[in-house]
Amino acid sequence: MPESHARRRAALRAELRARRLDAMLVTNLLNVRYLTGFTGSNAALLVSAEDEAADERGTVFCTDGRYLTQSAAQVPDLERLIDRPCDVALLTGIPGGRVGFESHHVTVDGFDLLAAASGGLELTRAPKLVEGLRLVKDEDEVEALRMACAAADRALADLISHGGLRPGRTEKEVGRELEDRMAEHGAAGPSFETIVAAGANSAVPHHRPTDAVLITGDLVKLDFGARVGGYHSDMTRTLVLGRAADWQRELYELVAAAQAAGRDALAPGVEVAAVDAAARSVIEAAGHGERFLHGLGHGVGLEIHEAPSLSKLGVGTLTAGMAVTVEPGVYLSGRGGVRIEDTLVVREGAPELLTLTTKDLVVV
Amino acid sequence: MPESHARRRAALRAELRARRLDAMLVTNLLNVRYLTGFTGSNAALLVSAEDEAADERGTVFCTDGRYLTQSAAQVPDLERLIDRPCDVALLTGIPGGRVGFESHHVTVDGFDLLAAASGGLELTRAPKLVEGLRLVKDEDEVEALRMACAAADRALADLISHGGLRPGRTEKEVGRELEDRMAEHGAAGPSFETIVAAGANSAVPHHRPTDAVLITGDLVKLDFGARVGGYHSDMTRTLVLGRAADWQRELYELVAAAQAAGRDALAPGVEVAAVDAAARSVIEAAGHGERFLHGLGHGVGLEIHEAPSLSKLGVGTLTAGMAVTVEPGVYLSGRGGVRIEDTLVVREGAPELLTLTTKDLVVV
Repeated sequence: MPESHARRRAALRAELRARRLDAMLVTNLLNVRYLTGFTGSNAALLVSAEDEAADERGTVFCTDGRYLTQSAAQVPDLERLIDRPCDVALLTGIPGGRVGFESHHVTVDGFDLLAAASGGLELTRAPKLVEGLRLVKDEDEVEALRMACAAADRALADLISHGGLRPGRTEKEVGRELEDRMAEHGAAGPSFETIVAAGANSAVPHHRPTDAVLITGDLVKLDFGARVGGYHSDMTRTLVLGRAADWQRELYELVAAAQAAGRDALAPGVEVAAVDAAARSVIEAAGHGERFLHGLGHGVGLEIHEAPSLSKLGVGTLTAGMAVTVEPGVYLSGRGGVRIEDTLVVREGAPELLTLTTKDLVVV
Repeated sequence: MPESHARRRAALRAELRARRLDAMLVTNLLNVRYLTGFTGSNAALLVSAEDEAADERGTVFCTDGRYLTQSAAQVPDLERLIDRPCDVALLTGIPGGRVGFESHHVTVDGFDLLAAASGGLELTRAPKLVEGLRLVKDEDEVEALRMACAAADRALADLISHGGLRPGRTEKEVGRELEDRMAEHGAAGPSFETIVAAGANSAVPHHRPTDAVLITGDLVKLDFGARVGGYHSDMTRTLVLGRAADWQRELYELVAAAQAAGRDALAPGVEVAAVDAAARSVIEAAGHGERFLHGLGHGVGLEIHEAPSLSKLGVGTLTAGMAVTVEPGVYLSGRGGVRIEDTLVVREGAPELLTLTTKDLVVV
């Protein structure tokens, strides 16, 4: 999708001009991927603020000799430099001007090397410029997120329909099967370490799978995601094995109501803290405010956790095109916990739900 | 193993005194883990150069509220601060003096925050001090590496004995089974993206598994490792399906001879470039020098790739206790390639081999 990469570079150039920068040195590899499509492990990009329509003469991509073939295929539309180290090599080619660098990413020692190579350039801090663009997903990105979410949805459906969630299995076995099934449905890998938490373990928000065995009557919390085309999905479902006790059903209905309230609050212009509050107030009203131990959600894209943060202390408002999770939970220590999480895209009107697995209480 | 962590901190204090530093702020999370055993996702450590025997009053560990319970269990032997951000909080507690920071890890923006909090302190660049200590593994580390290597050895043995390497399977399926079997043998996860490369794909040094199907007569290159206790194993074996052709057998014997020469060259005091040369000269003598496209090996430990680099341009000498890979390969484009790789520990006398799978040509 070279067109979308070119559009993203055009948006960056507009930012550069607004900040009176002549060029920008992009060294965060995820940002290089966002702007070019390159997926290797070493690269940098120099973007010039000048915009001669489709002629990007001031934009140079750099990688090393290992990626000669791969970069030719992935970045056919840019001037290419094969050198090492790329950041220094790209700077050396510029005659002068104000050049922004990613001061939130370049290390103190790395900056020394840049400064030594900068000649007559004025190196200027330009933190999170590309991350700012990445906040709002374009349609190519949303499509990748849809595919990542679909891989997770299908993996969970397969797991359940093939009897993968049954008493006697361990949390680790369930986690591995979920990850294998995501791979069968196109995932390059899991988005993060899959969480499978059974029984009392479900009350631990970020429990890692153990050899603990699933038992009839357990709440089983599954928090997992798939990586497709570099994009991450994130979904949590909490199920019950065998038969749901009344307290489990009540807890589930409460969290489901809070989650629905959080989803309903997603709209352009809404403060992120207000989205958190919409869900949290439902749980607080039920007297469980202290048992909802974390923020409501987070942005998701090329990173599993990225801006914006939907939390009490979060600052800023939502924009159409942001991809976020909504994941309230209530954790009853020693008994069990419920978390329900979707990945969604903020839209004018109702948000677009990407994780489609039912949120009715599933009893397996 | 709090004793080994205390020993590592004592070694760091000796380094600090040698460099006339009063204290060191450790922010690289892997280095914090190395010095304390803490495995969470946010922490920092302040180590004072003063060494009052077992009394480490100047050493303070910091993490945030999420890790209250975990840090109490993992770091019972140090004063603990629960705050956020940890680096700034730790600095604020020091009255004065020369304080080293990890300038290879702290970003330009991060340094601004440290400088603003430094008061009367003299912040001093101290890059890779802890990484320098990590070069030589202690016995606890070697034991973790042994376990990681054993998980990979056993996974491969199980894969073969259960018929997992057979015509008709895809590279991806084989990769997933290898990873599952490593998990069964105690791996927390794979060390890196498992490489399974069949037929002509085996000629691509870092091929990612595809849906390509294994065929009788194929060379199958498996490059994989297990993570145990934070330590990484790394092993490559190349097998043949069905019956080995003469050219495959010759290629295999050549690489095996080069690999043996590389292993034999491992000894304290030897230049890393000389180890590379020992293996490379065998391949060059056979006229395949141009087809050995990468360095001979790398250090391995808390990171899958760490110092030292065993390559043509590598600088420095080996020391007893270094853990390294030896992995020559010859790649015949369009036909197939062979790589053979072990993880070993440099010892006085012969190196200690950690990956024990046979290096005879296995025909499955």
